[in-house]
Amino acid sequence: MPLSEFDLIYQFFSSLGRGPGVVLGVGDDCALLQVPEGEQLATSMDTVVAGVHFPEDGFPEDIGFRAIAAAASDLAAMGARPLGMTLALTVPEADDLWLRTCSEGVAAAVSAFDLPLVGGDTTRGPLSITVQVFGSVPAGKALLRSGAQVGDQLCVSGTQGDAAAALLVLSGDWPGSHEAAEYLEQRYYRPSARLALGQSLLGVATSAIDISDGLLADAGHIAAASGVKLKIDPALLPLSPALRSYPDQDQALRWALAGGDDYELCFTLPAEAELPPLCTRIGEVVAGEGVDCGLDPGDAGGYRHF
Amino acid sequence: MPLSEFDLIYQFFSSLGRGPGVVLGVGDDCALLQVPEGEQLATSMDTVVAGVHFPEDGFPEDIGFRAIAAAASDLAAMGARPLGMTLALTVPEADDLWLRTCSEGVAAAVSAFDLPLVGGDTTRGPLSITVQVFGSVPAGKALLRSGAQVGDQLCVSGTQGDAAAALLVLSGDWPGSHEAAEYLEQRYYRPSARLALGQSLLGVATSAIDISDGLLADAGHIAAASGVKLKIDPALLPLSPALRSYPDQDQALRWALAGGDDYELCFTLPAEAELPPLCTRIGEVVAGEGVDCGLDPGDAGGYRHF
Repeated sequence: MPLSEFDLIYQFFSSLGRGPGVVLGVGDDCALLQVPEGEQLATSMDTVVAGVHFPEDGFPEDIGFRAIAAAASDLAAMGARPLGMTLALTVPEADDLWLRTCSEGVAAAVSAFDLPLVGGDTTRGPLSITVQVFGSVPAGKALLRSGAQVGDQLCVSGTQGDAAAALLVLSGDWPGSHEAAEYLEQRYYRPSARLALGQSLLGVATSAIDISDGLLADAGHIAAASGVKLKIDPALLPLSPALRSYPDQDQALRWALAGGDDYELCFTLPAEAELPPLCTRIGEVVAGEGVDCGLDPGDAGGYRHF
Repeated sequence: MPLSEFDLIYQFFSSLGRGPGVVLGVGDDCALLQVPEGEQLATSMDTVVAGVHFPEDGFPEDIGFRAIAAAASDLAAMGARPLGMTLALTVPEADDLWLRTCSEGVAAAVSAFDLPLVGGDTTRGPLSITVQVFGSVPAGKALLRSGAQVGDQLCVSGTQGDAAAALLVLSGDWPGSHEAAEYLEQRYYRPSARLALGQSLLGVATSAIDISDGLLADAGHIAAASGVKLKIDPALLPLSPALRSYPDQDQALRWALAGGDDYELCFTLPAEAELPPLCTRIGEVVAGEGVDCGLDPGDAGGYRHF
């Protein structure tokens, strides 16, 4: 890539770097962030690789947006307030149009998630994006996976299984309506990181995780970290109208239980706590270990990228 | 990669995650770090790609160490005290030996640079490593590129050009002694991030940068950010005995001026300030712009990975 072009992209990104916690953004050896007094830094890193985590021929702006949403979702799961992010973009060649279009997705995510872009790295190589997000959370108050108590309600935000169903749309095999297909594709490429919900759960929820590997797998992380068993009633799972329109409802349920990439929150609430808006109680915390959804164990795995 | 194997590696890494600023390491949605009161978070991201930034057949422990050293060097350039790091490792296949050996390099870097590993991501894909480092620096005191003043001394740490000369060693074309070759290879794969020096320069140096793209290029960043000209006297450049032993001393000088990857610091000091140990005055800050080393402009470029 010619020097001037690199600088252009760099400048494009650097205009996305302003925010209340940003002392110094792109352009020096490090970015400087101000973590508010009495708060701790919450940070998480996510890598997505072309052909593994997203289709190689996906729209660059969607690829950029989704990579950031996935990382922002980790902040949501801790109840953290966004401070900023850095982004390592590895691209095979100097495709100016690709980079500019990807930048538009990045810009949309900066705005959607209040995550100014404060630094990063652009390198040549096989297409991949690593996003590091920074947030802050009152000291000692972060939502962990380890606090679920017997008797708590088990809850999720939004609807489950949409991103898994979207893979049918992306492969051209979706049998349903065009509207449903559009909705599902949007859910796949433009997931909502539930940042406001996460912050509202501070001091309320006893545990939380974001659903990236599938509800069963991620609920399993809460169960393991908390030393409890999570009972899920599949009949309570919130499915979108698009998913409800799919002919095979057993498959829809499997997507909701084991499909990944929805980036909703799964959390536990004390029995007496009120359910936040747009959230659903899907079961309860009992003594024991693991996750029980009353179905065949063959359906009881999430997925891993390895 | 089988689940158990992935978990094994994960556990290996997670044992490297303890440190005074680490509230919560690997194992939840985010890591939590405590930035000391009155300090700001300094953070930087570096990606290295196999075949672009390091030879594909390099020793895994060296590759791991070097990726972290390069990122740690950015903390040094700001005068930041290390808090921790996250690491995104993308590997083509589940090569247990490769991963374990790489982990040993990571462990060595954790210890060498006081950078507990607090999180990360392991994905399948073409080999690359992204490192995000975190440090803290007293509010408003970070070493920036922008503070150089006319009349300041221009200084560097260590010796220059070793990593560029090491490329001859790696390609098997080094004509000199075995001892020199070993030294140069060590300088390439095991660079020192000058963290202690960076912290000692707080409140003393007027500007600083780490030398990753080559002295001329990186000095150029100080010149541009500070609105000054940097005059370098090539006769003052500190060359290692290994580089002095190279038959073509003009080439040795070009490596020292334009070769990258040395990860030494380049900084400016007020005229009256004392030179820190193992540092060398190589020129001065004058009015104007750019970098002047009295040589042909053809030699006056660093390198970029694009």
